[in-house]
Amino acid sequence: MSTGNRADEDRIARAAISLAIEPGDWRALGLTRELGPQQFLDVLRHQPEARPEFGAAAARLAETDAERVLERSASRGIRFVVPGDDEWPRQLDDLARAGVLHERGGVPVGLWARGPLRLDTVGESVAVVGARSSTTDGDQIGSDLSASIGAAGRPVISGAAFGIDYAAHRGALSADAPTVAVIACGVDRAYPVAHRQLLAHLAERHAVISEAPPGSAPFRIRFLARNRLIAGLSRGTLVVEAAIRSGALNTASWAERLNRVVMATPGLVSSAASEGTHQLIRRGSATLVTSAAEVLELVGVAGQDLAPEPRAPDRPRDRLSVRARQVLDAVPVATPVPADSIARVAGLGVEDVRRLLSGMAEADLVERLPTGWRLTAEGRG
Amino acid sequence: MSTGNRADEDRIARAAISLAIEPGDWRALGLTRELGPQQFLDVLRHQPEARPEFGAAAARLAETDAERVLERSASRGIRFVVPGDDEWPRQLDDLARAGVLHERGGVPVGLWARGPLRLDTVGESVAVVGARSSTTDGDQIGSDLSASIGAAGRPVISGAAFGIDYAAHRGALSADAPTVAVIACGVDRAYPVAHRQLLAHLAERHAVISEAPPGSAPFRIRFLARNRLIAGLSRGTLVVEAAIRSGALNTASWAERLNRVVMATPGLVSSAASEGTHQLIRRGSATLVTSAAEVLELVGVAGQDLAPEPRAPDRPRDRLSVRARQVLDAVPVATPVPADSIARVAGLGVEDVRRLLSGMAEADLVERLPTGWRLTAEGRG
Repeated sequence: MSTGNRADEDRIARAAISLAIEPGDWRALGLTRELGPQQFLDVLRHQPEARPEFGAAAARLAETDAERVLERSASRGIRFVVPGDDEWPRQLDDLARAGVLHERGGVPVGLWARGPLRLDTVGESVAVVGARSSTTDGDQIGSDLSASIGAAGRPVISGAAFGIDYAAHRGALSADAPTVAVIACGVDRAYPVAHRQLLAHLAERHAVISEAPPGSAPFRIRFLARNRLIAGLSRGTLVVEAAIRSGALNTASWAERLNRVVMATPGLVSSAASEGTHQLIRRGSATLVTSAAEVLELVGVAGQDLAPEPRAPDRPRDRLSVRARQVLDAVPVATPVPADSIARVAGLGVEDVRRLLSGMAEADLVERLPTGWRLTAEGRG
Repeated sequence: MSTGNRADEDRIARAAISLAIEPGDWRALGLTRELGPQQFLDVLRHQPEARPEFGAAAARLAETDAERVLERSASRGIRFVVPGDDEWPRQLDDLARAGVLHERGGVPVGLWARGPLRLDTVGESVAVVGARSSTTDGDQIGSDLSASIGAAGRPVISGAAFGIDYAAHRGALSADAPTVAVIACGVDRAYPVAHRQLLAHLAERHAVISEAPPGSAPFRIRFLARNRLIAGLSRGTLVVEAAIRSGALNTASWAERLNRVVMATPGLVSSAASEGTHQLIRRGSATLVTSAAEVLELVGVAGQDLAPEPRAPDRPRDRLSVRARQVLDAVPVATPVPADSIARVAGLGVEDVRRLLSGMAEADLVERLPTGWRLTAEGRG
């Protein structure tokens, strides 16, 4: 044990726990919060028989040298950020009250991190996640929205997986915006291998983080534990395409449990890659979004970030007076009728109507034929 | 005036009002309900100066012979269905309390109808409406959903317009299900002209109805009045594609005001034909639906019509015991590891784990390599 100050000892104790337990072991994480890391280590070291559920962790602990792992990690550019550090992303503390899903939950004892981006600067970030087997449309949307979210000053969090995750990081990078990959294996490993270059770039310029210590392999339970961090780090989670079994739905569940904003983009009714997102929207778990402005409104400050309502372009009829519009509404679309018929339908005098019709004919909204008046294509619009 | 019975006199008075006013003239319709049709006619005939807003109606009334129009219509297979008739679709009476939109509103004085389908049999119907400029995907969805809604025994109501309306009628017809076209012009006219054959077929086998008397031309305000009847006749309104200006959104507003179910199908984020439907869903005005089962659940009886949740097909891992799944979750996806590492991650004894791994290898969920175990493609699924 080091003779360093209390903060150092705390970090070493937390590193030892991180090396001994699986990410998201909610019982161990809960006890660490309750007792403090030193006291929880004491339980593992000296009273393993009192807590048989920690048998495997106690066995692993005996084999680890946390201080050495911290030193070796530091020499490779990997830091271990823990609660109490200035850099600690305090929004993760909400995980203490977010319950358990798939036996995973709790505030991580610390985060292993590579890259210059400070983790305390991503509190206003948006998570963009989705199907690994995404469609071309989904990739485009994920990338476009992430670029705009990034351009609006919000970091983009994702998981570096194939499909939408990749599109999300790429979109943020295209806008020169900060982006964080939260991965399930150690930050010194590349999974999927095909994204080695992406992960290296993020570790060089942005941040790659993991709850699992360096060297850890990507197991399924680690992905489930990882998803809660993606949801927990960000103000809101946007799901762009997700099949029914998609891990992105697990991330959305975490965001919902954390009372963070959950958003989803729609897709074709027939698209299997949108079945999960449609289910989220249908159930009311996610709000449908189709633009970055809508995303920013939902994660933003009321009164500051209101998205413009989608509007069709102004039509000539919008610029008419109330009376002129009344007349226009009474002009038939197909067979022409005389002005007096139009006057009757509009409930106005025939002289007024003749005058207004002439004006609208000049604006190309109505046309006069031998048998009367009718709308032009412009007037029907 | 006829010397017939009271019901005949009521029908003639209502026909006279229908001939004199515009469809959806909420002031006239409100007074007709309040005073009764005869008394409202008395106002128009004898005290026009007391209600100058009915000046145009009073003028038209003087030119009409309602009894003759009813007779001539009957000889052409057109009946005039009024409140109090057995055939009256009583769900329309809810329009008395649904307010006014675009200066239109109220319970119609009667409905001009062609076709053998009785209007009192469409109370469980679903309205399927949408963009005239629909996409191929939208047409397909509108047609498929309407066929399934019809096959489930529910009439399909629509407006016989281009695009989704056409797809809706066609879908219902393909399922040999009742379908009603509510049109804005007289039921003796065809608008759009390209749908003459569709309308003739519906008038022959199903029903074509209008609030506007025979001979009426299709004016814009008549479409707005017509939309409230589509919403009012049906238990719920399904919007399949709608641009921001679409009349289908007007129908959806009416359904919302009537506390009927409003549903919409999603589309591509980039599709202008889905901007209106996405807005409905986003605002919470409509529930997102992607299948007829979901539509039928929403318009159906609680506990009887629950739609199946979309589910992915069962995977081999779903059939494993809890302990086996615990082991499977601890097997790496890429680099193989020995059984004792897996046992530690899973928190189980190494002998148990070896036994379970062998069983799962037979089921092709994991594979054994010289350096240890890892998941197969099947096991990753």
